[in-house]
Amino acid sequence: MTQNSLNPEITKPFPASRKIYVPGTQPGVRVAMREIAQTPTRNIANQPIRVYDTSGPYTDPEAAIDLRQGLAPLRRPWIDARGRAGNVSQMHYARLGIITPEMEYIAIRENLGRGQRAESGDAPHGQGRDHQHAGNGWGARIPREITPEFVRQEVAAGRAIIPANINHPETEPMIIGRNFRVKINANIGNSVIASSIEEEVEKMAWATRWGADTVMDLSTGRNIHETREWIIRNSPVPIGTVPIYQALEKVGGRAEELTWEIYRDTPIEQAEQGVDYFTIHAGVLLRYIPLTAGRVCGIVSRGGSIMAKWCLSQHSESFLYTHFREICEIMKAYDVSFSLGDGLRPGAAADANDAAQLGELATLGELTKIAWEQDVQVMIEGPGHVPMQLIQENMELELKHCMEAPFYTLGPLTTDIAPGYDHITSAIGAAMIGWFGCAMLCYVTPKEHLGLPDKDDVKEGVIAYKIAAHAADLAKGFPHAQERDNALSKARFEFRWEDQFNLGLDPDRARAYHDETLPAEGAKTAHFCSMCGPHFCSMKITEEVRQYAEEGMLAKSEEFKEKGAELYVLE
Amino acid sequence: MTQNSLNPEITKPFPASRKIYVPGTQPGVRVAMREIAQTPTRNIANQPIRVYDTSGPYTDPEAAIDLRQGLAPLRRPWIDARGRAGNVSQMHYARLGIITPEMEYIAIRENLGRGQRAESGDAPHGQGRDHQHAGNGWGARIPREITPEFVRQEVAAGRAIIPANINHPETEPMIIGRNFRVKINANIGNSVIASSIEEEVEKMAWATRWGADTVMDLSTGRNIHETREWIIRNSPVPIGTVPIYQALEKVGGRAEELTWEIYRDTPIEQAEQGVDYFTIHAGVLLRYIPLTAGRVCGIVSRGGSIMAKWCLSQHSESFLYTHFREICEIMKAYDVSFSLGDGLRPGAAADANDAAQLGELATLGELTKIAWEQDVQVMIEGPGHVPMQLIQENMELELKHCMEAPFYTLGPLTTDIAPGYDHITSAIGAAMIGWFGCAMLCYVTPKEHLGLPDKDDVKEGVIAYKIAAHAADLAKGFPHAQERDNALSKARFEFRWEDQFNLGLDPDRARAYHDETLPAEGAKTAHFCSMCGPHFCSMKITEEVRQYAEEGMLAKSEEFKEKGAELYVLE
Repeated sequence: MTQNSLNPEITKPFPASRKIYVPGTQPGVRVAMREIAQTPTRNIANQPIRVYDTSGPYTDPEAAIDLRQGLAPLRRPWIDARGRAGNVSQMHYARLGIITPEMEYIAIRENLGRGQRAESGDAPHGQGRDHQHAGNGWGARIPREITPEFVRQEVAAGRAIIPANINHPETEPMIIGRNFRVKINANIGNSVIASSIEEEVEKMAWATRWGADTVMDLSTGRNIHETREWIIRNSPVPIGTVPIYQALEKVGGRAEELTWEIYRDTPIEQAEQGVDYFTIHAGVLLRYIPLTAGRVCGIVSRGGSIMAKWCLSQHSESFLYTHFREICEIMKAYDVSFSLGDGLRPGAAADANDAAQLGELATLGELTKIAWEQDVQVMIEGPGHVPMQLIQENMELELKHCMEAPFYTLGPLTTDIAPGYDHITSAIGAAMIGWFGCAMLCYVTPKEHLGLPDKDDVKEGVIAYKIAAHAADLAKGFPHAQERDNALSKARFEFRWEDQFNLGLDPDRARAYHDETLPAEGAKTAHFCSMCGPHFCSMKITEEVRQYAEEGMLAKSEEFKEKGAELYVLE
Repeated sequence: MTQNSLNPEITKPFPASRKIYVPGTQPGVRVAMREIAQTPTRNIANQPIRVYDTSGPYTDPEAAIDLRQGLAPLRRPWIDARGRAGNVSQMHYARLGIITPEMEYIAIRENLGRGQRAESGDAPHGQGRDHQHAGNGWGARIPREITPEFVRQEVAAGRAIIPANINHPETEPMIIGRNFRVKINANIGNSVIASSIEEEVEKMAWATRWGADTVMDLSTGRNIHETREWIIRNSPVPIGTVPIYQALEKVGGRAEELTWEIYRDTPIEQAEQGVDYFTIHAGVLLRYIPLTAGRVCGIVSRGGSIMAKWCLSQHSESFLYTHFREICEIMKAYDVSFSLGDGLRPGAAADANDAAQLGELATLGELTKIAWEQDVQVMIEGPGHVPMQLIQENMELELKHCMEAPFYTLGPLTTDIAPGYDHITSAIGAAMIGWFGCAMLCYVTPKEHLGLPDKDDVKEGVIAYKIAAHAADLAKGFPHAQERDNALSKARFEFRWEDQFNLGLDPDRARAYHDETLPAEGAKTAHFCSMCGPHFCSMKITEEVRQYAEEGMLAKSEEFKEKGAELYVLE
């Protein structure tokens, strides 16, 4: 790796946006957010909109970025103050009743600093900016305001995790749990065939720019250790890995030659580097393996297939299972969280919710109990390919077997028939399982099943999953989640084109699409668009309807009421 | 329009595919389908897979295409044999107990000719090609085999419609109803600002190539009549329009100058041309209009806003409502189906399921009864922007108020915050409402809210909606819907790359994505891909697991059973 800065495309600030830092009460707690300015409606100001920001210092023009230096270690003083002896997990502190700075950071972040500021008074039309439909949380218990104490309780109960290795002080604290905002993960990583360290570091920063809450480095090729080092030192979000990939390299790719002793060094090496969570496929038990023989797609998880091969060749339970308590010892010394791997996840619609998958899920629940005995944080991996009518069962069984430990699912892909579009087949399933209670959605890119995602694919996958996660937040009724929708729709209705672009997940694309038909700058303030043209605009007609209504209809309101307009809401 | 042929990109046959025609019993019933050939697995043949084909003669290399001639009028003899006097609607015949050739065509088409052929005997691994999960149809009653008599019953009951104007004999019969495959519609149409007749005819054919079951021509610009003529004469799928758009042109865009007399000529003109269904916004009642004044996005339906403006300016109920029975007279003389427009659909999440929207829906139910008195076919338009937790209520209320008349919804878009990606925000909602019982999904393209879709956008929208519709068919348990998924996944597992591409919705893109990383032809038969590389392939490891299982585990099977592997399915 020779470069010390990123492509400006990755670090340029978002349009009309500024980075703000909301202070907490504990020393050093300054929570980064993005604030999007809006233009006024006639003479009335439209309040800026704050959005959850995963992009770290990269989008802050004030921040000095040097990839060789890495990001500033914002959590270092907090970690040092707690000391490194014994169990350093956030769950351990939570159970001791300690509200860590990370927990306070997270509370402010989830609320977008709402507790720190007065509620805005502007109510545009009728229902207003703060209107939000009642959600259906399927049993989630989301408070009106996320407090630091609530964060502590959720972590103590195991219903949420804060992936935050003490050796990754650069990370901005975030939380994964169904009583918080739904999160998304982006996978990156090189393979023997393709890509370089530079590309992977760029992909990491690029993914966080568009909204990745965590990034998994799934590298399997050369320079695994060095690639990971560059990624971690420069990552503002938690990094996950699958240590078995690197362990396998040590035995030349021959799974049957792995041993606990050879394996053990890998999680220690990676924990030392600062990896925040490990996927560990400890639930692939010998008795589940033959259950996959009749599947259409067998075992599609890489880790799962490695462990299955090992188990069969040794005719014994895997060392990940038999040495699970020793793995917990490593985890708690660094506060690495478990992401208990679903080695037997279905790789085809036909294989969904079968005995192999659900058997492993129950075992993951048993392992969760063991990890919790040592205050080690746990989330549970799930889905893959699951048709819609079988999605909710996954969530229900996970909550039951794994005692509400956060669920972290790939997709699910709701059909197998669209290679090249699996970001869409899976965004459907991801939105649904997010609504049902899944805490983090692992993205799928358009290249899934076909090749390694490049930078464009990473963006497509991240945006599709931000959509899914936000749709889930709306459906669950996460407090104020609808604020951004309301603001964008109001801008749309009022033909504030720039505001509409800027409030969207991807201002660049929205602007580019608009400009394809109407490139002139004047068109961005025009009260029409290319869909209908200037003389035939439904929004324009509606404005007239509203004027009619405001001017002339007031006198008629009683009459309308008599006719049955129960929810008559004329301003 | 000067050209007489389409861009070869639009008409080239799909790879490894051939057009087949399955004959019925009535004269001239030859049902077009696409059959995708597969390569063998070692020495064992993989049966070809038949797929529902909306592309008409364009993808048949045997068909002579001349845009100036139009397509062959395959329904002409059937229409002529029935005569044109009085009521010529499919519902009318259905209620007389007559099974029309159209109904038989549809039965064969929905079954993919399955009644006409022996079931295949090949069961690959375990669950096999014919395995399918039990569906959850939320009250749909889908038989194992769709018979012509079942089609007749559903049409007679109003639960399904066959849009088939007697003056559009070129159309290949299709059905819209929740006990049939979920269908999708693509909108095209020029505006004053952009696009030409050539472009619109190309978009129509392009949309059907990728799977549009119907096409709506929403032109509002110049040459409305001529554009429509070219589209209809060359369309193998039903064409829908919104007559009020053309009527408004006649009064220079001034809604308040419209009259019933001026309007009436337009549906007659369009029915003469062969339009198969009309969106008629007859449910925009005076008392609902002020209910929209407090909305974030007011009235976003063009037809709805025109009628609202008219109603307010006249202070009377709209002529579409007061003359609804006369409109029915026109419809039944040509067999044009109603698509009762949702003029008050929500244009923002905030406005979903409000009193305006649901009031109009109830009125659409009353209009349905009136249309059915005259045996006029009806479907009901719905959604727009609806967060996930409010989607099912839409479907339930539609079934209740409109007596199970087929529902036809735009999206719904499950969040407002992603302009440029609304094919995805809405594919999520479309898949869900399709599962809940929506019969046809109106696509949304990436350009929604930003500009007029070009050919690429049309394809993106159609594919996203084919995914949604198929995911819904799987979830409802439509018979054999999973066959294509199973075949594609089996091909994927066996590294039959070409088969995987060819069985997908978009073979071109799947191949292109694969080739970006591994372009060599050899890589398409390689037993690995660029995701993991040759030495680290989960599919390859699983094959080894399967071999282990097949060879060595049989002796162990009793032991495994003791350990609790209840669903042990070793071949």
